[in-house]
Amino acid sequence: MRAAMEAEAVASELCSGHGRAYLDGLVVGGKPVCECNTCFGGPDCSLFSPDCAADVDSGNPLFLEPFWMQNAASSAVLVSGWHRMGYSYNNQSSISKELEKYIRKLHSVVGNAVTEKRFIVFGAGSTQLLNAAVHALALDNSTSPAGVVATFPFYPAYKKQTNFFRSTDYKFLGDTSLCKNTSEANTNIIEFVTSPNNPDGQLMKAVVQGANAKAIYDHAYFWPHFTAIPAPADEDLMIFTLSKLTGHAGTRFGWALVKDEIVYERMATYVDVNSFSVSHDTQLVALKLLKTVLEGKGREIFDFAFGTMRNRWETLSEALSVSNRFSIQEIEPRYCTFFNQVRGPSPAYAWLKCERDKDEDCYTVLKTAGIIGRSGTVFGSGSRYVRLSLIKTQDDFDLLIRKIKTLVSNEDGFKTM
Amino acid sequence: MRAAMEAEAVASELCSGHGRAYLDGLVVGGKPVCECNTCFGGPDCSLFSPDCAADVDSGNPLFLEPFWMQNAASSAVLVSGWHRMGYSYNNQSSISKELEKYIRKLHSVVGNAVTEKRFIVFGAGSTQLLNAAVHALALDNSTSPAGVVATFPFYPAYKKQTNFFRSTDYKFLGDTSLCKNTSEANTNIIEFVTSPNNPDGQLMKAVVQGANAKAIYDHAYFWPHFTAIPAPADEDLMIFTLSKLTGHAGTRFGWALVKDEIVYERMATYVDVNSFSVSHDTQLVALKLLKTVLEGKGREIFDFAFGTMRNRWETLSEALSVSNRFSIQEIEPRYCTFFNQVRGPSPAYAWLKCERDKDEDCYTVLKTAGIIGRSGTVFGSGSRYVRLSLIKTQDDFDLLIRKIKTLVSNEDGFKTM
Repeated sequence: MRAAMEAEAVASELCSGHGRAYLDGLVVGGKPVCECNTCFGGPDCSLFSPDCAADVDSGNPLFLEPFWMQNAASSAVLVSGWHRMGYSYNNQSSISKELEKYIRKLHSVVGNAVTEKRFIVFGAGSTQLLNAAVHALALDNSTSPAGVVATFPFYPAYKKQTNFFRSTDYKFLGDTSLCKNTSEANTNIIEFVTSPNNPDGQLMKAVVQGANAKAIYDHAYFWPHFTAIPAPADEDLMIFTLSKLTGHAGTRFGWALVKDEIVYERMATYVDVNSFSVSHDTQLVALKLLKTVLEGKGREIFDFAFGTMRNRWETLSEALSVSNRFSIQEIEPRYCTFFNQVRGPSPAYAWLKCERDKDEDCYTVLKTAGIIGRSGTVFGSGSRYVRLSLIKTQDDFDLLIRKIKTLVSNEDGFKTM
Repeated sequence: MRAAMEAEAVASELCSGHGRAYLDGLVVGGKPVCECNTCFGGPDCSLFSPDCAADVDSGNPLFLEPFWMQNAASSAVLVSGWHRMGYSYNNQSSISKELEKYIRKLHSVVGNAVTEKRFIVFGAGSTQLLNAAVHALALDNSTSPAGVVATFPFYPAYKKQTNFFRSTDYKFLGDTSLCKNTSEANTNIIEFVTSPNNPDGQLMKAVVQGANAKAIYDHAYFWPHFTAIPAPADEDLMIFTLSKLTGHAGTRFGWALVKDEIVYERMATYVDVNSFSVSHDTQLVALKLLKTVLEGKGREIFDFAFGTMRNRWETLSEALSVSNRFSIQEIEPRYCTFFNQVRGPSPAYAWLKCERDKDEDCYTVLKTAGIIGRSGTVFGSGSRYVRLSLIKTQDDFDLLIRKIKTLVSNEDGFKTM
């Protein structure tokens, strides 16, 4: 109870709606200090710096923070000091059966993945599971190191992580175009398929075919906020993360749905040897969050999240509709089985292209205009592209739109409507 | 508040003192189901199975659970649904500065490690940090893969983990006797030094000398409950874990104190690429636990923990004092700077030896007598040795003593006192 009251006191700090104060934050004079959104400052975060750059680089999913603040009472969880201190759950498993049950229920309610006849592995975010999957798939009847590939543009962590561990069992090769047909090769090819894709939001399928081709489906963004759900995904190895579902990037929790038992066991062993298991308090927090998500069959959070993302996309599209200089990706409207209707795009990121010949370094063009994106080169694409994150705070997004409008209104040959 | 009350309701389930019920456990008919200690059963865990084996295999540190139950009010923490959802803390760091501050304070109060001029890396238990350290040290001006060694008997995870990732940068060699002098070799030698040692509780120092020799000090057990603290450890790379300090093995949290900035950065990058960071809720829980530990300068928990471990050691020693067949390791009484007195041994494990010629397979001798230990072969020692865990629940320990007494009383040539 004392803990609960402490938490309430912290929560009651208002920070002008442009920041927050936490239990484990800095305390000055007995009062928790506000941690302000980018470009906001002062003791209560009310001071706005108009010349400050719009930082839309990272995929920090803070757009969901208001939802959890609105649902503070139902989503808070008290972790007792004696909560599951041992290494295992009562069934000698490293995963909470109750949490596993809620994950299966969630996929069933959302209709975005088949969980029947699938094993579940938990990891410290999807990050840990990505390499666990590469490890597991590389060991299948292979004589040479497995090649790991992805289709440009792709999430850079695949390459960074695969190379980082310098395993004798696998190496990163690059774009899938290098090896679309592996049926003759003796080498396993492991393809990362991000669907919807990071950075461009397109639904994707594996392109590498052949007996030695294996795919890891990274479905981090396969939720109704970011894409229409045409049908439940039914792949052999699918990875999800709490980060892009509920917005809890700081709670390192992800899960993999795995069809093959041997692959599942290898992945579970990887997590075990690497870090033993996912922290029991993290599993308890994830359980509470999923319970809240599933209240009212998930309509509340997905309505909120889709509404926010759809609104942001429309706002950005409108701001850029008068531009000849910049374009963003097209995503077709599609029937969504979750919302039971055709719906327009609401991707996590804008994949912006500088169209003018001289704007070859698009990142710098935007930077100069006070917009910090992530260069297309990071995703293996050309420097004409920049990824803009649309999933950060409303303040970050509002500032982005302000800068975009200024930039577009200053265009030579301003398109007439 | 609702969360707090739910937790209280769960906690109020009594389970006869031989089990516990949790928020995220099974619920039948609206009531949480008791999860019983080994050899106890029934709805309220009151049914004891006398023929059930004493399972003293694992290092599950449940001996500290009663302490946290007694301090339930001060150690509970409320995690709000909007707690630190982003990837980073406000300072763009992946670690809580507040928690870092408490860790430094803890080492200063206990006097077991120098933290001045040390960088701190957080990991998912010490497990993740062990391999991060091997990775970091292997990269130092080396042309060939670094060799990883430890002195027999040693914690088997070193070998298992080092081999598991099949890195081109390092490989496990075995016992330190293979390479006590590396001054002429071109290869880096990385030595794991566990002090006090797992399994035998002895304080250890690195034995490999030379310009290319580097040591990882695993100080998991270097706390007043398990050993006298002769002086603060002052090594280049020291690893600690919450698991053996507070007993929270299920809360995957460890930290490394690192002198060299480059080694620190490599370790931090390893954790980042591997799993991004330690879950923010885990960091919040760890902070609350350390705050509780530091109330009254740590006397309360260390008095409790040392008292328990010392008592268990004396009880076991006494039970074995009449035996010619079994012996346990000797640990010298030593002056402890924390308790300011000479104190007797209180190790986490008994390192039991079967003395009779015919008892070559000591593990099976004990197993037949209803005691499940961990064979010496697992630690790279002979099969005459078995590790018995003394850090599990009181029920586990009591059952061990009961079985030991029966075993000893049945000895042929029962020693006369």
